[in-house]
Amino acid sequence: MSLKNNLAMAHEFMKKTITKNSITVDMTAGNGHDTLFLAEHSKSVYAFDIQEKALNNTKDLLNKQKLTNVTLIHDGHENIDRYIQEPVDGVMFNLGFLPGYDHKVATNHETTIEAIKKSMLLLSKNGLMSILVYHGQDSGFTEKEKVLEFVSTIDDNQFKVLKLSFENQRNYPPILILIEKK
Amino acid sequence: MSLKNNLAMAHEFMKKTITKNSITVDMTAGNGHDTLFLAEHSKSVYAFDIQEKALNNTKDLLNKQKLTNVTLIHDGHENIDRYIQEPVDGVMFNLGFLPGYDHKVATNHETTIEAIKKSMLLLSKNGLMSILVYHGQDSGFTEKEKVLEFVSTIDDNQFKVLKLSFENQRNYPPILILIEKK
Repeated sequence: MSLKNNLAMAHEFMKKTITKNSITVDMTAGNGHDTLFLAEHSKSVYAFDIQEKALNNTKDLLNKQKLTNVTLIHDGHENIDRYIQEPVDGVMFNLGFLPGYDHKVATNHETTIEAIKKSMLLLSKNGLMSILVYHGQDSGFTEKEKVLEFVSTIDDNQFKVLKLSFENQRNYPPILILIEKK
Repeated sequence: MSLKNNLAMAHEFMKKTITKNSITVDMTAGNGHDTLFLAEHSKSVYAFDIQEKALNNTKDLLNKQKLTNVTLIHDGHENIDRYIQEPVDGVMFNLGFLPGYDHKVATNHETTIEAIKKSMLLLSKNGLMSILVYHGQDSGFTEKEKVLEFVSTIDDNQFKVLKLSFENQRNYPPILILIEKK
């Protein structure tokens, strides 16, 4: 089976890019799954979330695996420039709400696009950003449209932008956007 | 660099699926590049083209590499069921016109969709079909729309359908559609 779901695809493409020397960023720590993945595959990770409970869940997950190479940041990812000035090889976004918690607390297109723009400035040559866009049920439609609109305008001399979408699945499977710095 | 162009992506996904025991099909032999790729990575290949010169170009390319595991078929790919009754692990389409020749002689959506449907019936479990859709310049727009419309209706209990599209590139880069039998 060569076609995995987009969550697994994001990890697969990221693994081809980041190394044990890489600085990486989880822009939406959530329950910590991507932070854990990045901590296992890079030198050090910055992980952002606006929700305290998300950071606590992430901390628990990392502690269980005895991983100590993560800096947790309790702030919106649109403020990334206040915390990171060095080049990063990998940046991951997982848009939407925190699974299991209030659907009204979710990423929104304005801060998401600001965060994408600021992350693009930090990406090293051949560095990769993955954006998993959840939409459907009660939210995420506007964010999906606005993010897709924005990424279509990115300068193709500087970045590649690839979209992966499952075309025949019901229940709104997430879309994956990959942005690679040339 | 983890993001290759869609031609290379098609080969990369196909390589994860086919083996030296696989029967494979090049639905559009063209100048023979996909036929050569399939001949090198599978047991035997059927290659279709409606243009004699395409088959001759393909034959020359295979002869240079001393490959003898290809059956060249001078017929439209929509007639695949007349030639193949056994399960196949990989099927490749490269839509559009033959590079370097008459743009008016090109694949068209009606026979393309018929050929896709018939190929789906031949795909083995976990078998993969790749469809590289060229569009732009003077042709291919209708075919692209019709093929995308068709693949969105494929039963998701039986097949996965993934679309890969570069969102910010000028000059109409080809779209890649991957169809995997569950």
